[in-house]
Amino acid sequence: MNGAESLIRTLVAGEVTACFTNPGTSEMHLVAALDRVTEMRCVLGLFEGVVTGAADGYARMAEKPSCTLLHLGPGLANGVANLHNASRAQVPIVNLIGQHATYHLRYDAPLTSDIEAIARPYSKWLRTSSRASEIGRDGAEAIVAARTAPGQIATLVVPADVAWSDGGAVAKIPAVPKRKLPSTESISRAVSMLRTGLPTALLLTGDALHGEGLKAAGRIATATGAKLFAPYPVTRLERGSGMPVVQRIPYMPEQAIELLREIPQLILVGAAPPVSYFAYPGNTSVLTSPECEIHTLASPGEDYVGVLETLAADFSPRSSKQSLNEKAERAPRPTGEITLQGLATAVGVLLPENVIVVDEAMTSGRGLMAATAGAPPHDWLGNTGGSIGIALPLAVGAAVACPARQVLCLTADGSAMYTAQALWTMARESLNVTTVVFANHTYAVLQREFSALGVGSPGPRAAELFDIGHPALDWVHLAKGMGVPASRVTSLDAFAKAMREGLESAGPRLIEVPL
Amino acid sequence: MNGAESLIRTLVAGEVTACFTNPGTSEMHLVAALDRVTEMRCVLGLFEGVVTGAADGYARMAEKPSCTLLHLGPGLANGVANLHNASRAQVPIVNLIGQHATYHLRYDAPLTSDIEAIARPYSKWLRTSSRASEIGRDGAEAIVAARTAPGQIATLVVPADVAWSDGGAVAKIPAVPKRKLPSTESISRAVSMLRTGLPTALLLTGDALHGEGLKAAGRIATATGAKLFAPYPVTRLERGSGMPVVQRIPYMPEQAIELLREIPQLILVGAAPPVSYFAYPGNTSVLTSPECEIHTLASPGEDYVGVLETLAADFSPRSSKQSLNEKAERAPRPTGEITLQGLATAVGVLLPENVIVVDEAMTSGRGLMAATAGAPPHDWLGNTGGSIGIALPLAVGAAVACPARQVLCLTADGSAMYTAQALWTMARESLNVTTVVFANHTYAVLQREFSALGVGSPGPRAAELFDIGHPALDWVHLAKGMGVPASRVTSLDAFAKAMREGLESAGPRLIEVPL
Repeated sequence: MNGAESLIRTLVAGEVTACFTNPGTSEMHLVAALDRVTEMRCVLGLFEGVVTGAADGYARMAEKPSCTLLHLGPGLANGVANLHNASRAQVPIVNLIGQHATYHLRYDAPLTSDIEAIARPYSKWLRTSSRASEIGRDGAEAIVAARTAPGQIATLVVPADVAWSDGGAVAKIPAVPKRKLPSTESISRAVSMLRTGLPTALLLTGDALHGEGLKAAGRIATATGAKLFAPYPVTRLERGSGMPVVQRIPYMPEQAIELLREIPQLILVGAAPPVSYFAYPGNTSVLTSPECEIHTLASPGEDYVGVLETLAADFSPRSSKQSLNEKAERAPRPTGEITLQGLATAVGVLLPENVIVVDEAMTSGRGLMAATAGAPPHDWLGNTGGSIGIALPLAVGAAVACPARQVLCLTADGSAMYTAQALWTMARESLNVTTVVFANHTYAVLQREFSALGVGSPGPRAAELFDIGHPALDWVHLAKGMGVPASRVTSLDAFAKAMREGLESAGPRLIEVPL
Repeated sequence: MNGAESLIRTLVAGEVTACFTNPGTSEMHLVAALDRVTEMRCVLGLFEGVVTGAADGYARMAEKPSCTLLHLGPGLANGVANLHNASRAQVPIVNLIGQHATYHLRYDAPLTSDIEAIARPYSKWLRTSSRASEIGRDGAEAIVAARTAPGQIATLVVPADVAWSDGGAVAKIPAVPKRKLPSTESISRAVSMLRTGLPTALLLTGDALHGEGLKAAGRIATATGAKLFAPYPVTRLERGSGMPVVQRIPYMPEQAIELLREIPQLILVGAAPPVSYFAYPGNTSVLTSPECEIHTLASPGEDYVGVLETLAADFSPRSSKQSLNEKAERAPRPTGEITLQGLATAVGVLLPENVIVVDEAMTSGRGLMAATAGAPPHDWLGNTGGSIGIALPLAVGAAVACPARQVLCLTADGSAMYTAQALWTMARESLNVTTVVFANHTYAVLQREFSALGVGSPGPRAAELFDIGHPALDWVHLAKGMGVPASRVTSLDAFAKAMREGLESAGPRLIEVPL
């Protein structure tokens, strides 16, 4: 068995069974191995940002790593922006990056680059395999590193001759380090804070925001009156009717400061203290009030579910209803002209149960979370690292991870253009993704930031740099060009009809909503 | 004057008058400065790979740097693949990368990343500005670094507070280091080699491949019988009737070895010794024969034009015609069914004078150079670093640099999908670019490499990873989606008509050629 095959077989043994890829010459032996190991599902992307964003979406929903397979330094570089987002999402990913044969590197052929240098900034684990007999073991260690809580990016660089040489051995997968409960002192401190009666919030992240972790957090909130917060850049939030109320900290600093002003006690469960995305002249970056006591109950990677369940057991419920989203009386479906509020309401009214919502709607999406709080239970995936161009790839990965569920991908037009190639993968794999493009023909967030920074009003040339409407992007043409059925809607009625059709049918759809 | 304005004014003072950009919040003060400094032309790209590839194309044709303006680490990362190509092209580029305000970095906000780590691998000059009073000087030094022969990438990281603080000063541009002639010994050695009468070739690069450098090389070839070679990945080659015959070293190792077997003496002018792109099991990476004497006449950045003129003066012409491309008797325009040879012939027959040809046609383009050797004089720009997805961005930059010339962009379909967003910039700026997409619906180069690597025949899953035809990409829809008029041609007659119309009209066109 050559190195390549031992690596792929090791990955499958470690339950890594999806490979998102855009391979090149130096990865051909790995591709040949994929031919022989049919337990691995291969998903092709036409651009590497699709590949890495899909690996992120897959990990968020499957709660285990997939692997990417990328071509040398430039292929990796094309995937870096979404790896940045994935590293901020704290999800597990195993990157396989091809490299020239070891003896070829010295010639500095055109495609030679320092792959480790490109991978290092966001790879918590990074190694270049040095021989075929060890690459299985390297793969096994990469899986363990990726699965080590809270979820990490592990990058394995595979020289072509290591892949093609004989002597490969499938490796046993070592145990993943067990997540540890925080110290008793840390838990006691949180209990004391929750007993003061002062307004207190738990800022949750990772698996504290869905499943058993969220349920336990909900019991704490119910028993103590504490609020539950999520960071603005949320990896995965389970929400909807019957779920605990979790408020996302707003993106806009003034709104976040307003929310946090009332919170003299903040308990962090895996999360970092809230700060603004950007600095603004004369403003502080810290969003909590100076008097706020911030207690790190659980550091990143500690056992969030365990600690929340421990805490919840300490409190008996004060009320059984207080902190759960009530099932919304479903409002009548809005009709008439397109407005942002009307679109948000329509999404809230129409959202079926169990949908995975991917949200990169940017300025067009401000009303969406409020409008969907009481909709049937669903998952909400956000842009965790702020690098735009994540939504479509994330939707690809989520749909691959959960073939029985529908994905609703809400994206701004500017954002969607970074990685629009994902539409092709949706068509190729017949993924159940309904993409809604909010087409305001503008980098609207920049218009707002320009004023927020105190620069004044944009002059004609700045305004031109925010204007992506000349020429207008035609999303119906773009989608059809990549094999995705698409329509443009000009009323809320038409939007509702298209959204329902999309979520009821198999395969991808795209809806362009001109704003 | 704030730091941002002093930087932009310094760039203009240093003749950097084009800015290719996709800015974000942290660059808003630089955008505001662009509003005030109208001598800088701003060109927006919807994806950063377009921005950096355009900066490369601009530099190849304008022979001076433009600047990019990119958003933090992820914006830079999206541009890295084409910066890799640009670093291999040895062209001058000044990258401006926004960074969080210095005091904001410690909070590790979502978009925080190690920008210098991402920039370092291909930046020959790299600095983070530390105060407004120095950023003008930093910009001036970046320009000098970029312009230092043979042409380099200089990256200046601009923290937001450095940009927005007062105290900026426009800096004087220091002199660019003069290119040095190689040593007399090196020149004498080349003269001796050329006098042996043994078959000898000059492997040229940089400005030895166009203008006065190429003319001098042509005189040497005429006088001595030496052959002129260019590396396969050619930055800019001036060619066509009346120009010296320059043969590009083939991509396929067996063909390159065949060509170089007859050359016992190879003289390098800025170029590296020829090696294969990739390693193949059991084959050597070196393409020259073991007996070949390789002499580095000029190292990268030395004075190629000067040394070639010095050499040329040493020889009196032996014949006046021998090494010039003869004007091709223009063959009758091919008609009938589409074939690769027919397309190549059609391009050769129809190419008007002074066109800039951008070539990333990959396997579909093998006959193009032979078919155009005797066409009217033109420039030929290739993919210098092997990272595919360069053609459309390169065409954007070349067209911005040379508004009076037409650009013919020949691209494979797989390649074009990496950076198809460039079409939108072509439409927005009304660039004179005719893009021909050779749509073979396959990563055909990988099919070939798979066999060349001795892996055997692709199995069904490997074959699927090379197949980009399911669903078929519809380039007419894609182009129209981005505002570029487009047509699909199914005969050589229709191709000829569409190509002529494209090259005779203003603004962009796209021609899809299904293969």
